[in-house]
Amino acid sequence: MALIKPRTPPGVLELLPREQIAFQRLLDVIRNQFERFGFLPVETPVMELTDVLLTKSGGETERQVYFLQSTGAIEQGKTPEMALRFDLTVPLARYVAEHEHDLAFPFRRYQMQRVYRGERQQRGRFREFYQCDIDVIGKDSLALAFDAEMPAVIHAVFSALGIGEFCIQLNNRRLLRGFFQRLGVTDAGRQMLVLREVDKLDKRGVDYVRDTLRAEPFNMSEEAAKAVLDFVATRSEGHDDALARLEALRAGGSNDELDAGIGELNEVLTRIRQMGVPESAYALNFSIARGLDYYTGTVYETVLSAHPEIGSICSGGRYENLASHYSKSKLPGVGISIGLTRLFWQLREAGLIAMAESTVDVLVSQMDAERLPDYLAIAAELRAGGINTEVQMEATKLGKQFKYADRAGIRFVLVVGEDEANRGVVAVKDLRRESQFEVSRADLLKTLRVEIEQSQAMPSA
Amino acid sequence: MALIKPRTPPGVLELLPREQIAFQRLLDVIRNQFERFGFLPVETPVMELTDVLLTKSGGETERQVYFLQSTGAIEQGKTPEMALRFDLTVPLARYVAEHEHDLAFPFRRYQMQRVYRGERQQRGRFREFYQCDIDVIGKDSLALAFDAEMPAVIHAVFSALGIGEFCIQLNNRRLLRGFFQRLGVTDAGRQMLVLREVDKLDKRGVDYVRDTLRAEPFNMSEEAAKAVLDFVATRSEGHDDALARLEALRAGGSNDELDAGIGELNEVLTRIRQMGVPESAYALNFSIARGLDYYTGTVYETVLSAHPEIGSICSGGRYENLASHYSKSKLPGVGISIGLTRLFWQLREAGLIAMAESTVDVLVSQMDAERLPDYLAIAAELRAGGINTEVQMEATKLGKQFKYADRAGIRFVLVVGEDEANRGVVAVKDLRRESQFEVSRADLLKTLRVEIEQSQAMPSA
Repeated sequence: MALIKPRTPPGVLELLPREQIAFQRLLDVIRNQFERFGFLPVETPVMELTDVLLTKSGGETERQVYFLQSTGAIEQGKTPEMALRFDLTVPLARYVAEHEHDLAFPFRRYQMQRVYRGERQQRGRFREFYQCDIDVIGKDSLALAFDAEMPAVIHAVFSALGIGEFCIQLNNRRLLRGFFQRLGVTDAGRQMLVLREVDKLDKRGVDYVRDTLRAEPFNMSEEAAKAVLDFVATRSEGHDDALARLEALRAGGSNDELDAGIGELNEVLTRIRQMGVPESAYALNFSIARGLDYYTGTVYETVLSAHPEIGSICSGGRYENLASHYSKSKLPGVGISIGLTRLFWQLREAGLIAMAESTVDVLVSQMDAERLPDYLAIAAELRAGGINTEVQMEATKLGKQFKYADRAGIRFVLVVGEDEANRGVVAVKDLRRESQFEVSRADLLKTLRVEIEQSQAMPSA
Repeated sequence: MALIKPRTPPGVLELLPREQIAFQRLLDVIRNQFERFGFLPVETPVMELTDVLLTKSGGETERQVYFLQSTGAIEQGKTPEMALRFDLTVPLARYVAEHEHDLAFPFRRYQMQRVYRGERQQRGRFREFYQCDIDVIGKDSLALAFDAEMPAVIHAVFSALGIGEFCIQLNNRRLLRGFFQRLGVTDAGRQMLVLREVDKLDKRGVDYVRDTLRAEPFNMSEEAAKAVLDFVATRSEGHDDALARLEALRAGGSNDELDAGIGELNEVLTRIRQMGVPESAYALNFSIARGLDYYTGTVYETVLSAHPEIGSICSGGRYENLASHYSKSKLPGVGISIGLTRLFWQLREAGLIAMAESTVDVLVSQMDAERLPDYLAIAAELRAGGINTEVQMEATKLGKQFKYADRAGIRFVLVVGEDEANRGVVAVKDLRRESQFEVSRADLLKTLRVEIEQSQAMPSA
């Protein structure tokens, strides 16, 4: 029989077990923090009906959607009835609209599932990736305090993940609109074009961008171009500075949108502080826009202080209406999203993901095949006591068993030979500390539990 | 704008948040027990390359595979390059063969992901469902002790799930083959046909099946038909009875396959007992076959004692070679699978899934909008102490807030009004116990932690 070459499809990130353990720990930490803030779990099917998923014309090619066809459908040449979700927002809108009468509002949900996009093949771009989202959806209205809760969650999640210092950057879409209106750029599309030019600052430099803004089609005055460049360069340092920079915006003349944006950001900042987020963890950044057609108020990006080149690791914002395609109800919301597959990949590339210890705490070695019943009994006792335990079932050399445990990241190896059995003890090798000790059979469980609990309380470097 | 009716595709099980919490708890329990036995996590992409997934001719229509096409591929009329996995076994084979040199053998993995089958629409049949699998894969050989570990894991998982008494039923494919050989039914396909007739016992009765076996194409003698019916009716009661029934099989004359099957089952039973599985939890059932072309040794099914009508809730067995399509290596294995979506649905139908309490422990109510900063500070303190806490952000009537907490399954509601604030206390309403008490602000976290830990140690009815 000819062999088929086993291979994963291009553009997916498949992990070896120790990497998967590290990834799973990120998922667990994020889920715990989402639940800590009272968000409820939702999972939706990977596929949605095509007409439900693709409500916007042109959306399918933009999103590079994967369509689903069962064998029968292909034979009959039918149009695909289903397609894979490309984000968790459209499924959320469908979920909330479909189950509207069974949900309590404001509806707080988290969702951590994979999404699919037929991206062109490129290093660091994935066709299947995890998104970890939270959203709060109101009915008719939604208190601004929820906009402040998002940074509190971001702060909790990334503190718990322990991947270094980070800064949650805030802006407000109304403030952006008001600012551009003041400069006479009133058209939303034109505002976006200006922001797109401004995005080139890092690559092209200030002079290039200033020249562009002064030329066709923008034709800005020297002062207007300077105002834009000063504005988007704004980064606050500390809470009081943030409030002062907001107030300072009024100096150049005001309008309704600008006032509203300043007012909203002021309240959001105040609430963020009330929620106990340290002021070093958040700042204003007036250059953040996040796509013109969706967000309407507060917007967020999060940057690792030591790795700004990674870009935003958690973004989101406030939107006017979640499910206008599916429901007559007005459903305003605010949410954030972590693209975990890409983040994991980037952290690994940057050397920030430590090789995880195994989920297995203990390997009971097989020194003597005749004593296997004894080894099985020891394992049963440890498992019943909450310790993850593997038994060496195959009779191989002890050295090989140790090598296996070491490579697998298993911390403790137990050895019971004739001598230990006669003395009623177990030899415990601690591969992490490179030490060993003996413990009486009766004290084994208790001793290992203490060791494991201590190391969980104080993680290894 | 015309509204699109929001709806899930047919054949999927989408859950409301409280159901999702209950489902998530099943997943967590299963994962914990899999890890307790030292199995390592693996996740594979939902899609596989078509030629890798569909190695067997005819497999695609049998399995009703969903093919994937990106927008571009449909336009160009290409054959689909990818398809969704229909189980976790083919992806495991591909994974092990692809990463063979990076894995340690025996390779112990668990995988809990959704799989996809284009089933005809039918109540209780799902097109998307979770499978929770464990397998141990050896290289060249795999100790029989692993066959005994599977029932130990099944016992741990279903004990922890707490869905009632269950029995793990065992059989052995070599024992089956040997038994039929002794009766002169040597062809494997013919053996399967006999077993398929025997499967009709419940529906058609003994007389019908006996008549079928005696007629064309089986033409069995009266004695042979009786031997088959006696054989497949075998259910052991207790450990010694199981061993005795195995030995009794030798009375009718022996052959290599029968001897091998008896020997294997004998050792597996002995090891199961050594692993501490109570003898009430396992039994021989000689009628179990589980598909002729895959399993080669021990086979398992698991039945809820009070709900045999649900059928097997966890099945599996030993196989000779996992990845013959992808690798020249011989990779024998043994594994089990839980179809969790279907099990959850059946348990819910049978009223065996209790409505879960919320993942949210505490709601800080909003008695007085002016005190929101205080409520946010209380929540921050509770969260830092490990308590899942939601804050009522919208100013609504207190009665409405209590109703919300009650419907959502949140146990504690905190109330701080002017009176409580002046006295430095918090009023705590325990919705589960329908009681209330006051506690000083300083003792709030400690008090709630004690209450929550106590209830986790002793779950409510």
